[in-house]
Amino acid sequence: MFTDRLNRARELMAEQGVDVLLLSVGADLPYFCGYEAMPLERLTMLVVPRDGEATLVVPRMEAPRVAERPDVFGMRPWDETEDPVDIVVGLAGAATVAAVGDHMWSRFLVELMTVMPDAVWRRGSDVTAPIRSVKTADEIERLRAAGAAVDRIAGRLQRGEIGLVGRTEAEVSTELGRQIVAEGHDRVNFAIVAAGANAASPHHEPGGRVIGTDEVVLCDFGGTIVGDDGVGYCSDITRCVYTGAPPREFNELYEVLFEAQAAGVAAAAVGTPAQDVDRAARSIIAAAGYGEYFVHRTGHGIGTEAHEDPYIVEGNDEPLVAGNAFSVEPGIYVPGRWGARLEDIVAASPTGPDPLNRADHNLAVVA
Amino acid sequence: MFTDRLNRARELMAEQGVDVLLLSVGADLPYFCGYEAMPLERLTMLVVPRDGEATLVVPRMEAPRVAERPDVFGMRPWDETEDPVDIVVGLAGAATVAAVGDHMWSRFLVELMTVMPDAVWRRGSDVTAPIRSVKTADEIERLRAAGAAVDRIAGRLQRGEIGLVGRTEAEVSTELGRQIVAEGHDRVNFAIVAAGANAASPHHEPGGRVIGTDEVVLCDFGGTIVGDDGVGYCSDITRCVYTGAPPREFNELYEVLFEAQAAGVAAAAVGTPAQDVDRAARSIIAAAGYGEYFVHRTGHGIGTEAHEDPYIVEGNDEPLVAGNAFSVEPGIYVPGRWGARLEDIVAASPTGPDPLNRADHNLAVVA
Repeated sequence: MFTDRLNRARELMAEQGVDVLLLSVGADLPYFCGYEAMPLERLTMLVVPRDGEATLVVPRMEAPRVAERPDVFGMRPWDETEDPVDIVVGLAGAATVAAVGDHMWSRFLVELMTVMPDAVWRRGSDVTAPIRSVKTADEIERLRAAGAAVDRIAGRLQRGEIGLVGRTEAEVSTELGRQIVAEGHDRVNFAIVAAGANAASPHHEPGGRVIGTDEVVLCDFGGTIVGDDGVGYCSDITRCVYTGAPPREFNELYEVLFEAQAAGVAAAAVGTPAQDVDRAARSIIAAAGYGEYFVHRTGHGIGTEAHEDPYIVEGNDEPLVAGNAFSVEPGIYVPGRWGARLEDIVAASPTGPDPLNRADHNLAVVA
Repeated sequence: MFTDRLNRARELMAEQGVDVLLLSVGADLPYFCGYEAMPLERLTMLVVPRDGEATLVVPRMEAPRVAERPDVFGMRPWDETEDPVDIVVGLAGAATVAAVGDHMWSRFLVELMTVMPDAVWRRGSDVTAPIRSVKTADEIERLRAAGAAVDRIAGRLQRGEIGLVGRTEAEVSTELGRQIVAEGHDRVNFAIVAAGANAASPHHEPGGRVIGTDEVVLCDFGGTIVGDDGVGYCSDITRCVYTGAPPREFNELYEVLFEAQAAGVAAAAVGTPAQDVDRAARSIIAAAGYGEYFVHRTGHGIGTEAHEDPYIVEGNDEPLVAGNAFSVEPGIYVPGRWGARLEDIVAASPTGPDPLNRADHNLAVVA
C-alpha cells in the first residue's frame, strides 16, 4: 500500500516537474510511510526523490519508535550533534524543484532555503492532496467505522445519557473526550461544547460556563482511529440538543438548518462541483433570512487529517469524484443569542451520496 | 506586558534588519498577544511591522475566541472567500526581510514566497528566542507552580499510590494525564510511560504492554498551565520507579545517573556555556562506562513551549543568563534491556541554579 502511494506521488511529481518531495510533521508522513513524526524541534523528514529510494531522516532517539519498512523507505537516524538539514539536502541531491509538506515547520524551510538558495519551493499538497483526497474502499470503511463510533456518543447525548445541566462546558467536553477514546479512537481531536449564546461562536473553546435549563448545547467532536499500519482516520460530527422545550423561534431556525444540511448531503454527488454543495445548503439558509448568520464554508475533506481537501466552499469548482469524503455542516449563528450547526461526514460514491454518520438529525430535547 | 514584549521584538528587528515579523501557530502568538491560533488550514497571523502597529489576521469564525487588546494589536478578520495571504502581504507593506514564526505551516510560507518573490526569509526565532528564553521573575514563578504540580504527581508515583503492576503503559499514561489536569494544568503535553525494555526508547509511545513486577517504569510527563492573560507555562519531569527490589546492576546504573543529573544541575550557573552543563552530566556517565547509552542532549529550554531555547547540547557555547529555564535530564538506555532518565527543570539565577522540581531523586521501589 505504502509503495503504491509513493509511486503515485512520483507520477504526480513527474507531471508537475517536482524533483523531490519532503514530508515532515502532519498527516502526509503516516499516509505515505506509516510513521507519524513527533512535532518537536528535532527534524523528522521523509525524503522522496522522484527517481530514487525514499529515506526517513529521523532523530536517533526516536528511531526505535519507527515501524521499519525496508521495502518502502530507508532509515537515516541522526545524532544530536549532526545537522539534519544538511542530511536532507544531501539526500535531495541536485533538486531544483522541491515540494514541502504543508505542515512542515517554516523554521526548517527557511533553513533549507539557506542551503539550497536556487531551489523552487512548492506546496507538498500539490502532490499529496490529489492522492489523499480520493479514498479507497478500505479507507471509506475506516471512516465509516470512526463515524459509527461518534454516532454512538451522539445517540447517548440525544437520549439525555450524558449529563448537561449543572455541569460546565469544559466538564462535558472532557466527558465527550473520554467517550471518544472509549469508543476506540486513539486520540481526541476536539470536543467543542458551546451552550446558549456561546453556540454563536463556531469554534468556541469550552469553558467554565455552567449549562442551564432551556438552552441550546452545541457539541462538535471527533478523534482519530489509528490502524495497525500506523495510518489513522478521523471522525467529526456535530449535533445540538436543547435542555428544555425549545422556543418557537429556535425551532424555526433549526428546521431551516435541518433542511439546508439535508440539501447539502443530497447535492454531494459525483461530478457536482464542490461549491454547488455549499450553494445547496446556503441558498436554503439565505432564503429563510438567516444568510448573514452562516459565516463559514459548508465543509472540509476528512481522512487521515481532520481537515483536508476537498473544501466545500464557494470558489472551489472542482467536481467531486468517487472516494471524496467531506463534512456537510451548515450553521446559523446569532451573535449574543444562540446558534446551531448540524454535521455529517459524507462520501461521494458511484451510487450517490453515502453518509458516514447516521445519528438522528432532529433537535433532541433533553432534561 | 504584551506591548513591552512587542517593543523588544521591534528593537531586535531593527538590530537584525528585519522589516516584518509574521507569527502564526505555536507559542510565539500567545507570548506576544495572548491569543493562541487554532492549528488549522485557515491562516491566523500576527503581522508586526518594525515601524507600525501590529495586526491580527484571523478567520472571522474564530474572531469571537480572541481576547481583544486594542492597545496591543488591531484585528483583521477575514471571510471564507477572501485570501488571507493577500491580506498579510498588504499589511507587511514593502517588507524585504521577513521573519516567520518557526512553527508556521510551510504551506503559508510557500504561498507568501509566491506573492513576495524578492523577500528574504528569516526564522522567527532569531527575533523571538532571545526574548522568550530570558524569563522574568513572574514567568519563573509560573514555571515553579507548574513544576510543583507535577512534583505532587511524582510523589504519588514514588509512594506507590499510582497503580502500575497489572496495568498497561497506556492506562498509566491516561491516569497521569488525568492527574496533570487535576493538578491545575489546562492541557497535557505528554505522558510517557515505558516499562522494562521499553524504557530504553527515550520517546517510547505508551502501549498495550502490561507492567509486571521487578521492572523499571520510566515516567516523563508534563502539561501547560494557561494564565488569565492567555499565556501558558509548561511543566516537565521524569522519574523512574522499580516494581520490586532492583537488581544490583540497575542500582549501579541509577547511581551513575543520579550523580550525573546532580552534576548537571550544579553546573547550571549564570555565565556557564550551555554545553558545559551537558558535559558535566555526560562526563560522569562516560567515566562509568555508559557513554554509548546516553544518546541525547542533556536538556532543552522550557517556557511557553515545552521545548525551546536554550538547548543544553554540545555545540551550544552561549553562556547561560539569569532567567534561562531548561531541563537537566540525562538518561542511560541499554537497548533490549532497560533504561532510566532523571529530569528536573532548573532556572539559572544570580544566586545559583534554582531547581523548579523538588520530587525525590532516588529510585523508588513500589509494590
